[in-house]
Amino acid sequence: MKIIIIGASGTIGKKVTEALQGKNEIITAGSKSGDFQLDITSPESIERFYEKVGPFDALVSTTGSGHFGPLASTTPADFKKGIESKLLGQVNLVLIGQHHINPKGSFTLTSGILSEDPVVNGVNLGTINGGLNSFVISAAIELQNGVRINAVSPGVVEDSPSYFEYFPGHEPVAMDKVANAYVKSVLGAITGQVIKVF
Amino acid sequence: MKIIIIGASGTIGKKVTEALQGKNEIITAGSKSGDFQLDITSPESIERFYEKVGPFDALVSTTGSGHFGPLASTTPADFKKGIESKLLGQVNLVLIGQHHINPKGSFTLTSGILSEDPVVNGVNLGTINGGLNSFVISAAIELQNGVRINAVSPGVVEDSPSYFEYFPGHEPVAMDKVANAYVKSVLGAITGQVIKVF
Ligand SMILES: NC(=O)c1ccc[n+]([C@@H]2O[C@H](COP(=O)([O-])OP(=O)(O)OC[C@H]3O[C@@H](n4cnc5c(N)ncnc54)[C@H](OP(=O)(O)O)[C@@H]3O)[C@@H](O)[C@H]2O)c1
Ligand SMILES: NC(=O)c1ccc[n+]([C@@H]2O[C@H](COP(=O)([O-])OP(=O)(O)OC[C@H]3O[C@@H](n4cnc5c(N)ncnc54)[C@H](OP(=O)(O)O)[C@@H]3O)[C@@H](O)[C@H]2O)c1
Repeated sequence: MKIIIIGASGTIGKKVTEALQGKNEIITAGSKSGDFQLDITSPESIERFYEKVGPFDALVSTTGSGHFGPLASTTPADFKKGIESKLLGQVNLVLIGQHHINPKGSFTLTSGILSEDPVVNGVNLGTINGGLNSFVISAAIELQNGVRINAVSPGVVEDSPSYFEYFPGHEPVAMDKVANAYVKSVLGAITGQVIKVF
Repeated sequence: MKIIIIGASGTIGKKVTEALQGKNEIITAGSKSGDFQLDITSPESIERFYEKVGPFDALVSTTGSGHFGPLASTTPADFKKGIESKLLGQVNLVLIGQHHINPKGSFTLTSGILSEDPVVNGVNLGTINGGLNSFVISAAIELQNGVRINAVSPGVVEDSPSYFEYFPGHEPVAMDKVANAYVKSVLGAITGQVIKVF
């Protein structure tokens, strides 16, 4: 199976890459790191990326960033920047990738706990995550040729200790559980699911 | 109570306006209709609108549009256009409006059933609605001075019969129930809630 991992060098992506390698052909990508470079905030860059990589069986996205800061000082421009990265970046990986993926392939995106369990400063990421969860629920009923789609929604992960102070009382989630959720989506058969790891 | 209704001339907005008028001072707005005009897709237009209208006690938004069409032919540009209208338009009414609203005021936005109960062609609106629901959940914990925020999430409404063919098997919801959900948000005391009317 030919598996693309966008964000493979990141905190989550590293562990997902380890968990999926072995029997599979893994292609890693990032804006600076990886086998191929692309910028998920640019539809043209995504299109060029898929043309270079060729047909594939699974795409995993563990990337995208959002604005983290007080609601009172968040501007429309701050908010839009996050939407264009973590939300539209991942959506566009699917809108464009649906024309390059093999039959019975899968897309696995990353949302996060803030869609339903908010923290102070998290309004942009919460909105993005809620949008991504509903995107996979909706896209799953339309993808052709048996192509599947899911989102993994992690809580704050144990390998990101610098975030803990912003998630008071949240239980950091174990990396092997997080990686397993991506394995379940890619190697399993479910579709239109939000796989919560929290 | 001084209540602004953005989208007051629309199918839903008309009934919400009827339900709230009487004891309240109602200010209606739309891009062409109403007491004041604004374009919710432009943050500058929203800012000018609030400056003209002055301090207020409640803002109800029954506006914003999304792309409705097959996933297979949806382009990144189609998708972004809906995000900039129904999602960012309503988000920006709050980001900017938080600096103009009176203490103990409220914001009531409109999402919709497609966030969780998808239909073919509905992926853009589903994503937008999921984002809006998570936005109110997140924003509620940060708004200052007792300001509240909720979303009303209607199913397809009985006054929109031209949509019924795209919602096979969905039960159209009664307009008085829909209008009542907005009344509950504006005149009640709840916050951070998605009020489902389906
Ligand atoms: N960490 C957590 O606790 C946590 C919890 C829940 C959800 N999440 C979500 O999980 C995802 C990954 O988080 P993380 O903490 O693992 O992030 P991270 O360590 O910052 O890694 C980000 C990855 O994305 C790549 N990347 C960055 N910008 C890119 C762009 N414009 N185009 C293509 N690739 C790009 C980076 O590679 P380059 O440096 O080469 O660009 C890197 O591989 C994010 O969506 C985050 O919101 C994280
Ligand atoms: N109808 C349904 O069955 C249904 C079900 C669930 C959710 N919803 C949601 O409910 C909301 C209202 O739906 P509706 O069917 O009542 O819509 P509608 O009849 O098309 O009314 C739209 C309203 O928004 C105003 N408007 C349009 N563009 C605007 C802009 N750029 N800036 C400011 N105002 C603008 C319009 O006034 P002008 O003409 O003056 O611009 C009108 O008052 C939408 O978000 C829709 O997705 C509808």
